[in-house]
Amino acid sequence: MSTLINELKQNKIPGYISKIACEEMIPESLLIQNILKGYVVIPKNNQHSLKKPIAIGKNCRIKVNANIGSSPVSCDFDYEYKKLQTAIQAGADTIMDLSIAGDNHQFRRRIIKSGNIILGTVPIYDTLLEIGDLNNLNIDHFLQVMEHQAKQGVDFMTIHAGIQKKHLSLLNKRTLEIVSRGGSILVRWMRYYNRENFLYEYFDKILNIAKEYDITLSLGDGLRPGCIADANDKAQFGELKTIGELVQRCRDMNVQVIVEGPGHVPLHLIKENVKKEKIICDGAPFYVLGPLVLDYAPGYDHITAAIGGALAGMYGADFLCYVTPAEHLRLPSLEDVHDGVIASKIAAGAADLSHNHPESIKRNLIMSKARRNFNWEKQREMAIDKDKFSRYLELDKEITTDNQPCSMCGEWCALKRK
Amino acid sequence: MSTLINELKQNKIPGYISKIACEEMIPESLLIQNILKGYVVIPKNNQHSLKKPIAIGKNCRIKVNANIGSSPVSCDFDYEYKKLQTAIQAGADTIMDLSIAGDNHQFRRRIIKSGNIILGTVPIYDTLLEIGDLNNLNIDHFLQVMEHQAKQGVDFMTIHAGIQKKHLSLLNKRTLEIVSRGGSILVRWMRYYNRENFLYEYFDKILNIAKEYDITLSLGDGLRPGCIADANDKAQFGELKTIGELVQRCRDMNVQVIVEGPGHVPLHLIKENVKKEKIICDGAPFYVLGPLVLDYAPGYDHITAAIGGALAGMYGADFLCYVTPAEHLRLPSLEDVHDGVIASKIAAGAADLSHNHPESIKRNLIMSKARRNFNWEKQREMAIDKDKFSRYLELDKEITTDNQPCSMCGEWCALKRK
Repeated sequence: MSTLINELKQNKIPGYISKIACEEMIPESLLIQNILKGYVVIPKNNQHSLKKPIAIGKNCRIKVNANIGSSPVSCDFDYEYKKLQTAIQAGADTIMDLSIAGDNHQFRRRIIKSGNIILGTVPIYDTLLEIGDLNNLNIDHFLQVMEHQAKQGVDFMTIHAGIQKKHLSLLNKRTLEIVSRGGSILVRWMRYYNRENFLYEYFDKILNIAKEYDITLSLGDGLRPGCIADANDKAQFGELKTIGELVQRCRDMNVQVIVEGPGHVPLHLIKENVKKEKIICDGAPFYVLGPLVLDYAPGYDHITAAIGGALAGMYGADFLCYVTPAEHLRLPSLEDVHDGVIASKIAAGAADLSHNHPESIKRNLIMSKARRNFNWEKQREMAIDKDKFSRYLELDKEITTDNQPCSMCGEWCALKRK
Repeated sequence: MSTLINELKQNKIPGYISKIACEEMIPESLLIQNILKGYVVIPKNNQHSLKKPIAIGKNCRIKVNANIGSSPVSCDFDYEYKKLQTAIQAGADTIMDLSIAGDNHQFRRRIIKSGNIILGTVPIYDTLLEIGDLNNLNIDHFLQVMEHQAKQGVDFMTIHAGIQKKHLSLLNKRTLEIVSRGGSILVRWMRYYNRENFLYEYFDKILNIAKEYDITLSLGDGLRPGCIADANDKAQFGELKTIGELVQRCRDMNVQVIVEGPGHVPLHLIKENVKKEKIICDGAPFYVLGPLVLDYAPGYDHITAAIGGALAGMYGADFLCYVTPAEHLRLPSLEDVHDGVIASKIAAGAADLSHNHPESIKRNLIMSKARRNFNWEKQREMAIDKDKFSRYLELDKEITTDNQPCSMCGEWCALKRK
């Protein structure tokens, strides 16, 4: 089997490339060039019959990922599958299954078989799940798990290979040492054995599997700041430097790669985050979790993350991992998943608009003209959440009809005074 | 009676100045200097026994206003009063009563008598309400209404005096000509009579009343862009130029003044908005409505506005007018008011943090340390919405107890791996 980059280098252009270029409103040649340079990825396992591949990166619209999956205290895969459907319905472009309990193999098979969405995983989770004891982790087990997931058809995988022994002393000054689940597993292992991170040490073997199945590697930021006080610190940027080197190694192997980013970052430090990633990782697509611009808004972290995500997107982040209102509090409900995706889609849309994306300009314009004309049906069609739109209007449905203003101003509506 | 600026110029320092300086964590002398320069206002009618005056502007934390009030299709002042209580409870710093139906005199008296919060109004509304026919509007009626409200104790008033005849032709190219309720009233009157805006023409008389009662004038942006397509256009900045002149006329009379801003603005044009206001209006506090960074998210405009408000705040906006999820759809419910205030408080908090405000740094740090220690009670205490925090945790209360992680990761919690 071959990777997309290999194919493109041999001038074999898969059929979906022209579709994606058309959807992104960019020339096919530009899309191909960006993929070859590593500025754009199309996460698609060559075993996965994915109905609609998408592109992430330069000149493409910003994409949104939704995390789902079981936890030790809540393991109901039917409910998790409903979350997947909710997320897709709300507009998620990709899904990550972060299950850490139960039979997630079956669950993943179900998602992949549907062919409906790009799937990502964090294979260190299953490795630990299967081995049971963190201290027994090793690269062979990890590679077995990775290969198993690769054969299943997983499209992209988070690999926390950027954490090195030399970074660990930098964690002493932190308020929240490590908040990455994967990162914490590896750091504890490294400390226990006083050894280098086996994902870093055996990165070549990881690359071999990624190459065989054309898995897009998502270089995880295991040392991402988990609170404002730790943002942009030496540990974070130390890991980013290593990630930058790993990006080059992926490219040398024609393996697609993206880079994960924080986390909790105050507004004024977001630009530095994005610019640094773009320089250090030579334009690799940047996949950010938030960033959350405040620590003290639990219950509303979809909003703190939408603020940070919009700003990161404006500065060049390519891919937003959603954050739900349940972050820091509980495993998300269906409603949380929905609200998280919508908030991220708003952030992505605002950032696309800041890049003057023609599709975004058009959608905003159609909505505004529909407002001018009191065309509520057209407004509904353009709305990011048609159901909520209807729900809000229906409460006033005797009042709000076509050609009439809403109940906010009634006859005093500014648009009615001509 | 005298204005605060007059008093300060005579070295008479009201008792609340030191309290505000203490709360803002700035030297009293800096606060006074900022007020004298017009960079900070303390909106407080000299007839109003306000329990807790607050400062808005330079070196002060960003403040949040919540709009309430009746509309022709929904006029229930007891419900509006509950909105006021909800808004205060959620953290609103000021309230504007935008009632356009029913006996709002009684309603305002009730609010002012409580002494609990700074109250703003838009006197052109009552003027039209009383006269009934827009074409019969005139400056005398307006001044009567303004004086009546001034005697009641209203602290700040929106005056759309910046719209001039010369701006009207600039509206032809707009997608949404005018979305300001007050602006639309005045523009229709100006067009009907082909005359100059009487608020501009008789601004001296307005200043006289403002001076007598020490009312802070909020120079309304009647030509604010109501959609992305109209952002930062000639009409908007034309009006801003006139507003800049009016700011000077206020200062010449020792009348406190703030400037209202948009509206709908894409992310990448927000900085220009704030910087222009600060230059053209010589550092007068900037009071923005949003800005909303997308047109197509009705039902979520508290989020589109929080994104824009956070960014505006980072660049120097001083005062955020909340936007609720009901914007563009209906008069807000209690829940909408609550969610609108919280979203604006998040934006304000994120912007304060971007200015390294010590109180904000502290609150984020306490929250993060409480997270590290699984101290859920302390987290609740620091949370922006304690009730939602509890609600989310209670669903898992058998799981989430002190010293234990939440249901997101359970035993896999990164913070538990030491």
